[in-house]
Amino acid sequence: MLASLKSGPSRITGTRCMSTATQRAPVMRRAMLYVPGSNPRMLEKSLASPADSISYDLEDAVSPSAKPAARKLVAELLDSERRPKGEVMARINAVGTGFEIDDLDTVLRTRNIEAVALPKTNDPDQIEWVVSRIDALCPPEKRRGGANPLRIIGMIESAEAMVKIERIAAAGKGHLDALLFAAEDYCADVGIARTESRAELLYHRSKLVVTAKAFGLGAIDLVCVNYKDPEALRVESEEGRRLGFTGKQAIHPNQVDVIQRAYAPSEASILKAARVKLSFELNDKAGKGAYGLDGVMIDAPMYKQALSTIAMAVAAGIPIPEVTEKDVQ
Amino acid sequence: MLASLKSGPSRITGTRCMSTATQRAPVMRRAMLYVPGSNPRMLEKSLASPADSISYDLEDAVSPSAKPAARKLVAELLDSERRPKGEVMARINAVGTGFEIDDLDTVLRTRNIEAVALPKTNDPDQIEWVVSRIDALCPPEKRRGGANPLRIIGMIESAEAMVKIERIAAAGKGHLDALLFAAEDYCADVGIARTESRAELLYHRSKLVVTAKAFGLGAIDLVCVNYKDPEALRVESEEGRRLGFTGKQAIHPNQVDVIQRAYAPSEASILKAARVKLSFELNDKAGKGAYGLDGVMIDAPMYKQALSTIAMAVAAGIPIPEVTEKDVQ
Amino acid sequence: MLASLKSGPSRITGTRCMSTATQRAPVMRRAMLYVPGSNPRMLEKSLASPADSISYDLEDAVSPSAKPAARKLVAELLDSERRPKGEVMARINAVGTGFEIDDLDTVLRTRNIEAVALPKTNDPDQIEWVVSRIDALCPPEKRRGGANPLRIIGMIESAEAMVKIERIAAAGKGHLDALLFAAEDYCADVGIARTESRAELLYHRSKLVVTAKAFGLGAIDLVCVNYKDPEALRVESEEGRRLGFTGKQAIHPNQVDVIQRAYAPSEASILKAARVKLSFELNDKAGKGAYGLDGVMIDAPMYKQALSTIAMAVAAGIPIPEVTEKDVQ
Repeated sequence: MLASLKSGPSRITGTRCMSTATQRAPVMRRAMLYVPGSNPRMLEKSLASPADSISYDLEDAVSPSAKPAARKLVAELLDSERRPKGEVMARINAVGTGFEIDDLDTVLRTRNIEAVALPKTNDPDQIEWVVSRIDALCPPEKRRGGANPLRIIGMIESAEAMVKIERIAAAGKGHLDALLFAAEDYCADVGIARTESRAELLYHRSKLVVTAKAFGLGAIDLVCVNYKDPEALRVESEEGRRLGFTGKQAIHPNQVDVIQRAYAPSEASILKAARVKLSFELNDKAGKGAYGLDGVMIDAPMYKQALSTIAMAVAAGIPIPEVTEKDVQ
Repeated sequence: MLASLKSGPSRITGTRCMSTATQRAPVMRRAMLYVPGSNPRMLEKSLASPADSISYDLEDAVSPSAKPAARKLVAELLDSERRPKGEVMARINAVGTGFEIDDLDTVLRTRNIEAVALPKTNDPDQIEWVVSRIDALCPPEKRRGGANPLRIIGMIESAEAMVKIERIAAAGKGHLDALLFAAEDYCADVGIARTESRAELLYHRSKLVVTAKAFGLGAIDLVCVNYKDPEALRVESEEGRRLGFTGKQAIHPNQVDVIQRAYAPSEASILKAARVKLSFELNDKAGKGAYGLDGVMIDAPMYKQALSTIAMAVAAGIPIPEVTEKDVQ
Repeated sequence: MLASLKSGPSRITGTRCMSTATQRAPVMRRAMLYVPGSNPRMLEKSLASPADSISYDLEDAVSPSAKPAARKLVAELLDSERRPKGEVMARINAVGTGFEIDDLDTVLRTRNIEAVALPKTNDPDQIEWVVSRIDALCPPEKRRGGANPLRIIGMIESAEAMVKIERIAAAGKGHLDALLFAAEDYCADVGIARTESRAELLYHRSKLVVTAKAFGLGAIDLVCVNYKDPEALRVESEEGRRLGFTGKQAIHPNQVDVIQRAYAPSEASILKAARVKLSFELNDKAGKGAYGLDGVMIDAPMYKQALSTIAMAVAAGIPIPEVTEKDVQ
């Protein structure tokens, strides 16, 4: 160890996991909308959805007897000339259900598939199994190192998965793109009873977020099952974003807009970010160190946070307000 | 890896820990009542206790000078013809106190002993030491693989234990039955000061719960030291249950009833579970997928949670209300 | 394993980490005040500071162009006859910035240096690099096993660091003295947006605290950037202390007093501790076990917590109230 250290600390870097700073960003996936694979009307409607990601569902939204028909419907849609504007994802059935092999092989063979959501990911081997099927069935550009590697979403739905989450997050290199908190199954497995405060979920959601970020992955928050209450959805979405989630599952088209607005930065935070950015740069040019703005000490990490907020606003199509030297004095 | 994977994903299962779904259930242990081993009147009274579990205490409730007499009293009771209705447990003194060998060997030789609580379990080796004494002293039916393997309760009382909790949970296979959160010693070790909100304990209790569940173990919540306030006890008990604990320690007989009621499902939740169960089964028979009930989307995980609630009600002796097709439309 | 176990459970002790009970205490470091290394007036003023620890800052408070001048100023101060009453610490620039080698070597060569804060500690190897420089540059008494080993503060500022925190805490044996929660950079990396409740930080702060304690280290809480609001600072300081932190960063001299008062035990808690101590000792002398005081059951762990509170009060120079037998009946 000492030998390599002598050559300089720039070589001292862990290889087990990497912070987001040193990796490609995961795709922007604010709302991830499930569309029941067995419902032709909803499948058709999904093509016009503004959701950042559409997850064509072969799992919980499809009853066992309807699985083969749903698989066929989804495969036809994913292989057609038409596709939604957002990411094209399929949620297959979990390993061990007996449906998963046909599900996965079928969707991987389609033209438009970009991502696969794997329910009940309880072990890193399950991720590696998906990777082995990608290697067997997909064209080179969808394989590791290709132009558009197929993305895998690891769905965390059990105590076992949470205990193994670091090993899961380290699996499927180049393909694993996000971890997802599947609250209903997770709570059933752990024995958690949900409350309106969601305090009982804080540990579990926080651990998922920090693990995802440590491995350069996105973090997708729970479904708001109360799909008729946009205000409850807004509150829950904003809370998830504050915890560090990068997006949220939607089970109804009318949830998409609320979620996507919540996961875009607020006007106030964009304005603040623009002011921090300008004042920091002016201050730095003048060769000064830490300084105050609105009674708060501004330093390098706050500057980086401001840059990140501005980048998200740009990605969400929100204009950045102009700020002048006068505004930050 | 790939060779075994090719034979099908049904073989892709982790071996390090297992979710509750794939293991025997831990025993129902809603209230675990400590009875001071040095107090003949309380020992006698314990025989009539309705508690799911009685933990005859040789540790904190017994002063050092009274240890040998208490050990003798407890051994006589545990070896007699009479026993309480609930589980018969002994809490021995911690490893390193100098009392633990005599405590353990004495209680393991008794006829009625069913479980041992091990205080200050800071390392998996301590669990394995208990197992080695079971193998040496107990009849075959109390050993691993026997009809009634003696159960071990691992008491988590320090920062070190929490950092090693996954290794502790993996120890004592076939004997380790539950992890227990010993708040007083734990807070003293970590430097936590308790508040009425218990927010400062949320991380620690949640981590214990999810680890216990990942290894198929029960999770026993903290003592409510405020033993004269049944309302505070009720609130604390219900909170623990929502976090996923399966039971709670009691230090006074008048705490047992409140705890056991809190850890049984509520009438409202049983009714809701019965409605979810029926509507899901009707919907499934009709070959439909996800659907709404009372404005909430019902799917497979919610159905499983409903089944679990009903099973707990049955175990606690609570009648399940009858629900008809008309009630779920 | 069984062979060693047979020789008695007193040899059953983990070696991976140790609870505070079995290690030297970390130094008392209630307030850790940053002083910008580039500001001669503030450097001079720091010599009169009552802070338990002064961290001469070469990192965020110093702009890149001012780094060499700041390094020289700090080195001169740390090598002079004068020193502040508290611990003398330097915060160097992070590994990978290009400044860190000159920073570290320069401050290690000074007479008064007692501790080094290492920003963005993302890997245990970074700690070991600091140790290797201590071995190369410091006199024997500042090396491992010496009379005053130089102390290292590991600053946790990223998701990666949190995921590796147990390995970081196990590094730099004999030198690593505390882990520090660097909220601004941490939140930017994880994507957390701060709120006034700080609920979004609870998981992260709690995990840092319990890991630090498991390895016998101090735990230093976040900066209160709102440096003009002493009441907000007080609330935040007391909260940190309840979570188990042993101290808190300060970025302005006027924060020191509020923090150091908050991290000293309150009069009420000292009085309660004195009452618990006396009543427990009286009860123990009388050979009785658990008993009640003010409606709360008092046992051995509560006694130990009381002793710890009294020890902290003594260290902070607060008088212990006299309690007599009559006061605890």
